[in-house]
Amino acid sequence: MATQGKVITCKAAVAYEANKPLVIEDVEVAPPQAGEVRVQILFTALCHTDAYTWSGKDPEGLFPCILGHEAAGIVESVGEGVTEVKPGDHVIPCYQAECRECKFCKSGKTNLCGKIRGATGVGVMMNDRKSRFSVRGTPIYHFMGTSTFSQYTVVHDVSVAKIDPQAPLEKVCLLGCGVPTGLGAVWNTAKVESGSNVAIFGLGTVGLAVAEGAKAAGASRIIGVDIDNRKFDRAKNFGVTEFVNPKDHEKPIQQVLVDMTDGGVDYSFECIGNVSIMRAALECCHKGWGTSVIVGVAASGQEISTRPFQLVTGRVWKGTAFGGFKSRTQVPQLVDKYMNKEIKIDEYITHKLTLDEINKAFDLLHGGDCLRCVLTL
Amino acid sequence: MATQGKVITCKAAVAYEANKPLVIEDVEVAPPQAGEVRVQILFTALCHTDAYTWSGKDPEGLFPCILGHEAAGIVESVGEGVTEVKPGDHVIPCYQAECRECKFCKSGKTNLCGKIRGATGVGVMMNDRKSRFSVRGTPIYHFMGTSTFSQYTVVHDVSVAKIDPQAPLEKVCLLGCGVPTGLGAVWNTAKVESGSNVAIFGLGTVGLAVAEGAKAAGASRIIGVDIDNRKFDRAKNFGVTEFVNPKDHEKPIQQVLVDMTDGGVDYSFECIGNVSIMRAALECCHKGWGTSVIVGVAASGQEISTRPFQLVTGRVWKGTAFGGFKSRTQVPQLVDKYMNKEIKIDEYITHKLTLDEINKAFDLLHGGDCLRCVLTL
Ligand SMILES: NC(=O)c1ccc[n+]([C@@H]2O[C@H](COP(=O)([O-])OP(=O)(O)OC[C@H]3O[C@@H](n4cnc5c(N)ncnc54)[C@H](O)[C@@H]3O)[C@@H](O)[C@H]2O)c1
Ligand SMILES: NC(=O)c1ccc[n+]([C@@H]2O[C@H](COP(=O)([O-])OP(=O)(O)OC[C@H]3O[C@@H](n4cnc5c(N)ncnc54)[C@H](O)[C@@H]3O)[C@@H](O)[C@H]2O)c1
Ligand SMILES: [Zn+2]
Ligand SMILES: [Zn+2]
Ligand SMILES: [Zn+2]
Ligand SMILES: [Zn+2]
Repeated sequence: MATQGKVITCKAAVAYEANKPLVIEDVEVAPPQAGEVRVQILFTALCHTDAYTWSGKDPEGLFPCILGHEAAGIVESVGEGVTEVKPGDHVIPCYQAECRECKFCKSGKTNLCGKIRGATGVGVMMNDRKSRFSVRGTPIYHFMGTSTFSQYTVVHDVSVAKIDPQAPLEKVCLLGCGVPTGLGAVWNTAKVESGSNVAIFGLGTVGLAVAEGAKAAGASRIIGVDIDNRKFDRAKNFGVTEFVNPKDHEKPIQQVLVDMTDGGVDYSFECIGNVSIMRAALECCHKGWGTSVIVGVAASGQEISTRPFQLVTGRVWKGTAFGGFKSRTQVPQLVDKYMNKEIKIDEYITHKLTLDEINKAFDLLHGGDCLRCVLTL
Repeated sequence: MATQGKVITCKAAVAYEANKPLVIEDVEVAPPQAGEVRVQILFTALCHTDAYTWSGKDPEGLFPCILGHEAAGIVESVGEGVTEVKPGDHVIPCYQAECRECKFCKSGKTNLCGKIRGATGVGVMMNDRKSRFSVRGTPIYHFMGTSTFSQYTVVHDVSVAKIDPQAPLEKVCLLGCGVPTGLGAVWNTAKVESGSNVAIFGLGTVGLAVAEGAKAAGASRIIGVDIDNRKFDRAKNFGVTEFVNPKDHEKPIQQVLVDMTDGGVDYSFECIGNVSIMRAALECCHKGWGTSVIVGVAASGQEISTRPFQLVTGRVWKGTAFGGFKSRTQVPQLVDKYMNKEIKIDEYITHKLTLDEINKAFDLLHGGDCLRCVLTL
């Protein structure tokens, strides 16, 4: 613990400005304060939320910042009062905290913890409402309470999930965002039953994880919808049984699905972030019971709409954040499921690079054949 | 049964044209065919759906027709193959059928029966796709499969609920629409739990029945929202604990409710039919779990909208038709509840008139102090 209590200088990718290449910098990472944990990040993946904030379209995005929220690492040191993890523990930083004390955590109805949101939403730590990152004296904002594009980061203790030390960190880093989101959308939010018909809009990582979750839940038909035909072959391995490319049809896609399924699907999932597809996903649901779950994140200011008759006649419109999983409690369980070969991870990793190649990794994310690119830090 | 198998000539209120006064006519009512039941209607109430179709705003409205769908009566005769009711049975005609055989009825997930919708939706009977009503040889369309503004009507056997013959028909006629809709929105659709906070938008019959249902479910706070202050005193008797008039506030009504309830209500119900209030009702729900149920029926072509973030952060948007009650099975149970004093009916009846005063009854419905006006036929 030569570093404990001291500032660590390490490499991190800093986003100085929207849409400008990230810069690999020597960043100073202050020691964790009360209730905080400093984590050595060994592997991080990129997710569309990083790209969205980086693009400047997120009105709440703050610069300069250190992005990244899908990662795994090892606890380097802990601040005062931290009891649930200790140096050397293997962990996954979680952008959804779980304090087990707030109104949300105690409700038993949601995974959205309220404890630290007031600080993480504005890029600082709760204790002193300041950042632990700086470059040559200039503070750098945190991002989503995780900031994993750095060899060391500081997170709140309510945001670290302690996992099986045997688990390969270069794989389980994916359990920080996309894969649990898709699985949980099916298992926790929609609660898909065996025999159901399911439609999935968008066959990226999140959509494929929805397919995997639906297959595990015993869905009969899992219809994948994507505008990129290249997505289709791969999707079969994740459980998708039929494919539809909206471009191959003149009818609206909701009508195509209603016709294919004698009245509509039992469950649909929007995994793109496109508000008109969110509407189609609702309207392709079966009258009387069809449930649509919004998983994709739309750009700020955009709105969904439909005729209220769609709901009066029994369809249900929901959404999910991190798949409804309680992070500290359930991410370790997902790691165990992976170790028991009950869920896939390897199959989502299409590219591997190093931190200094991060701008290339963002380019890959926007290309069609990348699911997840994992960076070694 | 002197009338059995014969055409009956009786009084009915015929809507010849949109927005023109109904005309009390001698109408000829043909005998019931296979699977049909001819019912002597003794009492009918008026509901806003009657007024909506009459206004001409319903693009599916057909004229001339006989409106009415909230009524009670006695079976006069039955057609071939009808086994579940017989002449003399006391019944409530139900605009939501329950065949117990179709995909919908067998799903166990909805009360929307699909069996006769193809006929009732276009104002005819299923057997020969014709009307049983005529005036001087001109057929008159059926309405909602019920057409209760007539001393005799013909309905499908899957649309009649047989009830306790002791029940006062001049009261239980209300169990044909508004009261069950409100109670069921709470009990079946939202499934409000004890201790919940509830907001109700619109304190007409439907909103008051929501309040009654929420009180029975053990809700802690039942906040009534209406733009008409006269609604407030009466609403207390139905369980409303607090009142808000949006006109008394500068902030949007959703913000007023969020502030009153430390983050939002657990359940909200829109009982007006106004799409912007439907949005407010969703957005006043608590993050993480708040559920909003659309009960009001908006005018054709209108759309609801919101930011998808509202759903991604855990709110749920639903709707209800006839409160989710399975009509033939559950309307008789509601009658029993009334007989056991477990639910109110008398308190919703503010006016009583006769069939020939029906145009006056429509005027009353649009005035502020009328809940339900019951007509004697
Ligand atoms: N709710 C949450 O907690 C949460 C968590 C993680 C990610 N997300 C969001 O989920 C979404 C999907 O993430 P991902 O990593 O799988 O993204 P991705 O870009 O890899 O996948 C999106 C897929 O949608 C397809 N697509 C694009 N437009 C389409 C259209 N009009 N019709 C059909 N298909 C279309 C693309 O070809 C692609 O295959 C993103 O919006 C992301 O921000 C949400
Ligand atoms: N879903 C169903 O199965 C079903 C069944 C029956 C009735 N309905 C619908 O339910 C709705 C209510 O029916 P009802 O008989 O109680 O009607 P009603 O007209 O008696 O009550 C509506 C109430 O809303 C209030 N109101 C109007 N505009 C408002 C606003 N902007 N903000 C707040 N309050 C406002 C009015 O003052 C009135 O008290 C109607 O749209 C009706 O068509 C639906
Ligand atoms: Zn993500
Ligand atoms: Zn919490
Ligand atoms: Zn009605
Ligand atoms: Zn049926």
